[in-house]
Amino acid sequence: MISQTAEYALRAVVHLAMHAEKPQTTRDIARATHVPVPYLSKVLQSLGRAGLITSQRGLHGGSALVKSPADLTIFEVVDAVDPLLRIRKCPLGLESHGSNLCPLHRRLDDAMATVEKSFQSSTVLELISEPGPSRPLCAVRCADEVLSGSFVTVSDIASGVGVAV
Amino acid sequence: MISQTAEYALRAVVHLAMHAEKPQTTRDIARATHVPVPYLSKVLQSLGRAGLITSQRGLHGGSALVKSPADLTIFEVVDAVDPLLRIRKCPLGLESHGSNLCPLHRRLDDAMATVEKSFQSSTVLELISEPGPSRPLCAVRCADEVLSGSFVTVSDIASGVGVAV
Repeated sequence: MISQTAEYALRAVVHLAMHAEKPQTTRDIARATHVPVPYLSKVLQSLGRAGLITSQRGLHGGSALVKSPADLTIFEVVDAVDPLLRIRKCPLGLESHGSNLCPLHRRLDDAMATVEKSFQSSTVLELISEPGPSRPLCAVRCADEVLSGSFVTVSDIASGVGVAV
Repeated sequence: MISQTAEYALRAVVHLAMHAEKPQTTRDIARATHVPVPYLSKVLQSLGRAGLITSQRGLHGGSALVKSPADLTIFEVVDAVDPLLRIRKCPLGLESHGSNLCPLHRRLDDAMATVEKSFQSSTVLELISEPGPSRPLCAVRCADEVLSGSFVTVSDIASGVGVAV
């Protein structure tokens, strides 16, 4: 339903949102997201092509989000790597149907429209700030963040201010 | 989002529901649904394994629905060939998350749950009986049905009575 690629892209974006203090290397992201490096590299390329992240090579290089997590939706991330395919016209090519979808294809497209709408109204900031027992990508609370003191608060992220490590 | 296989299965089931008067050969179904025969054969095998259709070889053989279209849901058809994958536990394998999904995976699973619910509440009978300009698989109105006089009305289908050709 939601492709593996889209889910991996969301993991990567969530990691970048949670580590806005500095660019993250592909290896950093892979370790946190449990995504194989070659697969992740392709996902990051797609996110870059869509203008959602910037990536720089070199010693202090890495990837970072272009937008604030408060302005970035799940929909934009999914759309960048594996778009939800809406049904715009009869998949059988029946000319008399055209864009007047029959009840079968109307139902299927309605389902996709519902998902699209839900993803358009969910921001990455919501994903990383909602209270609850589980935080994305983190075992209870990200142990390495707590240990290094690099934990970035939600208000830091919303205001685009990173916390120095 | 909705896989090609699931959409093909729905086309096949809709065709069988609209031609309840006699078993339909794979070639009949392929012609009406615009699905390649080898692909369709695999889809029909899956529908058969799931107990949604029966198939008989031989001169008067073919495939037919087991249930009335009024009792068969979109969900059952999709579930038979390419199930909607719900997220039951943390895809990263984080033990502390377990079945307490984080907001990322909760959002994704909620989207799938919405689609699942929508498909569970839609029957095949609804797909072939809803008024509107387009009828599934048919150019305006199925020309061959009109010509052969084999058009099966919705009340015939709902009551499980086929119309003799």
